[in-house]
Amino acid sequence: MTSQNDIQTPLGAARTIISVDAMGGDLGPAAVVAGLARAAHHNPDIGFIISGDQPELERLIAKKKALQGRCEIRHTDEVVVMTDKPSQVMRRGTKTSMWSAVSAVKAGDAEVCVSCGNTGALMAVSMIRLRKLPGVKRPAIACLWPSRSKGGFNIMLDVGADIRADDEDLLQYAMMGASYARNGLGLAKPRVGLLNVGTEDSKGRPELKSANELIANASGEANIDYLGFVEGGDIPSGKVDVIVTDGFTGNVALKTGEGTASLISEFMRAAFKATPLSRIAALLAMTSLGRLKRRIDPRRVNGGVFLGLNGTVVKSHGSADATGIAAAIDLAYKLAQSDFSHKLAARVASAAAARHDTPDTGE
Amino acid sequence: MTSQNDIQTPLGAARTIISVDAMGGDLGPAAVVAGLARAAHHNPDIGFIISGDQPELERLIAKKKALQGRCEIRHTDEVVVMTDKPSQVMRRGTKTSMWSAVSAVKAGDAEVCVSCGNTGALMAVSMIRLRKLPGVKRPAIACLWPSRSKGGFNIMLDVGADIRADDEDLLQYAMMGASYARNGLGLAKPRVGLLNVGTEDSKGRPELKSANELIANASGEANIDYLGFVEGGDIPSGKVDVIVTDGFTGNVALKTGEGTASLISEFMRAAFKATPLSRIAALLAMTSLGRLKRRIDPRRVNGGVFLGLNGTVVKSHGSADATGIAAAIDLAYKLAQSDFSHKLAARVASAAAARHDTPDTGE
Repeated sequence: MTSQNDIQTPLGAARTIISVDAMGGDLGPAAVVAGLARAAHHNPDIGFIISGDQPELERLIAKKKALQGRCEIRHTDEVVVMTDKPSQVMRRGTKTSMWSAVSAVKAGDAEVCVSCGNTGALMAVSMIRLRKLPGVKRPAIACLWPSRSKGGFNIMLDVGADIRADDEDLLQYAMMGASYARNGLGLAKPRVGLLNVGTEDSKGRPELKSANELIANASGEANIDYLGFVEGGDIPSGKVDVIVTDGFTGNVALKTGEGTASLISEFMRAAFKATPLSRIAALLAMTSLGRLKRRIDPRRVNGGVFLGLNGTVVKSHGSADATGIAAAIDLAYKLAQSDFSHKLAARVASAAAARHDTPDTGE
Repeated sequence: MTSQNDIQTPLGAARTIISVDAMGGDLGPAAVVAGLARAAHHNPDIGFIISGDQPELERLIAKKKALQGRCEIRHTDEVVVMTDKPSQVMRRGTKTSMWSAVSAVKAGDAEVCVSCGNTGALMAVSMIRLRKLPGVKRPAIACLWPSRSKGGFNIMLDVGADIRADDEDLLQYAMMGASYARNGLGLAKPRVGLLNVGTEDSKGRPELKSANELIANASGEANIDYLGFVEGGDIPSGKVDVIVTDGFTGNVALKTGEGTASLISEFMRAAFKATPLSRIAALLAMTSLGRLKRRIDPRRVNGGVFLGLNGTVVKSHGSADATGIAAAIDLAYKLAQSDFSHKLAARVASAAAARHDTPDTGE
């Protein structure tokens, strides 16, 4: 099933290798390969293992100069489609491009895996192939959120790996999110907040009150700046870097934020089309509007990261185009470069040890 | 404690009377009175019972022509402030403007109460004075959300009355939200969706699966168009009118949406200030930008409605200015005009009867 693409030279040992599932996206492998070419163009150190239909991939790659000599194709016959249930994926499992792409990380051939496929299926395959880190009960999906923070982004997790989270899960999300902020955003001491409906300690569900104490107790050892409870309005704010929540609330918040941004963009287009004068204004304002669009472009923050596994998987939007894919690859590259998988594992292990060994933490 | 303001004539019997807590808002009674004057100006049928500091209110009202002969002042010495806990409110309870304003609805002197005060305190006072409707376990707060729907708004509930909701509560929220959509938005057969992390029946928490069946079974009798599960991205969409969720998720979604809208507005201002050319474009685009601003102005949708009590209470934003207060008064007037309180009570009673009497509904 693994075959060196004959139009490519072997991947150099010095390169950072990203494993890519070329088949799962809505726009097909052409958009994926175009995205890889973009990422490769501005990043000469990157190499790819690409899983999918070999003849098609060879044809697409041959057209992209930036990809020459930097791709290994692993042929697969089957594809996980968006409507597949995780159980169906499991049946056809090993023959799919998704399985092959995750397996390349498992085998140590690549540092990080990127896929545009179905989230549920990708999480199921990742759990089976990579397994959870020791001590992690529930892996999480972390997303980047455009914000007023210095780097322009905040991190929120879990945004949909699991609809439940107890106090210990939320503590682990805080540790994993902080580790992601250190390695993905370059923050030495990330500011972490726990999402609630108010900021007073008395607010919210019982597991939130308990998690609030657990995270506060662990924050010194873990070198995080724990802010306590934050609210929905704080997610895009400049006062927090990592927002911790359960996967149900996080998923609703993420989609609500995306939906609101898209509604406003639509209203904005309508406002500028309303009258002849407003159309002229729109022409003159084009540069400003372009600047705004780039700041809130969801493609620029494309890439949910699966945390809590033995290896890192980046989930790209199913509808990602070349720009979106390139952003996901850039993120994967950044995490691979910082040896994120191993640092995260060490962080989770040390947090678990601190909780179980030190009597004055963990309550 | 009740005194007819001597500079005003008595309230005409034909008028729709709104009871107003003049003291609880961040901007003080001047902003509230200015808002009342605006609402009174474009609505000659409205009259007010205003609770608060009599000398100050008399002075403020005297300056507003539109309010002459249309206000009864009920003097109170105390105010519920934003930092008050519900327990503190209860101690000073009966002497506050909030208590007086809600009591006017209880006594039948006014149709609807409007307050800018602390949400938790207002809900506590409303529960004590008005009591829950028979069969309602948890009242809910419903908000209006700018959307692609024909009328420009969707309704979401609960957005923070209670952090929990079981399947029966969610069924009642669906019924109450539909009743609000009929009377507040004028929709004969509202489209109702239950908020979840995916649209497949297998998704989500157990209480959501159960509520999904309960609402589907009750939808024929209740004359609602039940859509099943909807996602966060659907909240501002044109495909649903009423979004049902628990108060924790609803509160996070509401604040996330507001936070996202405010972030984009800020980015937009920054984009138009970035260069001299963009400043000129901003001047030319001013009309278009004003049009956009009006469409997403949170003050225009000011007014969370408390549902499930014997009487209707509209909670205005604490920071509401005259425009915001006027919007809350307009909403209160609309609901009073349609005899919403009694229609909602009848709807809840008939839904409860259908559920308990008819074997083929309610499972």
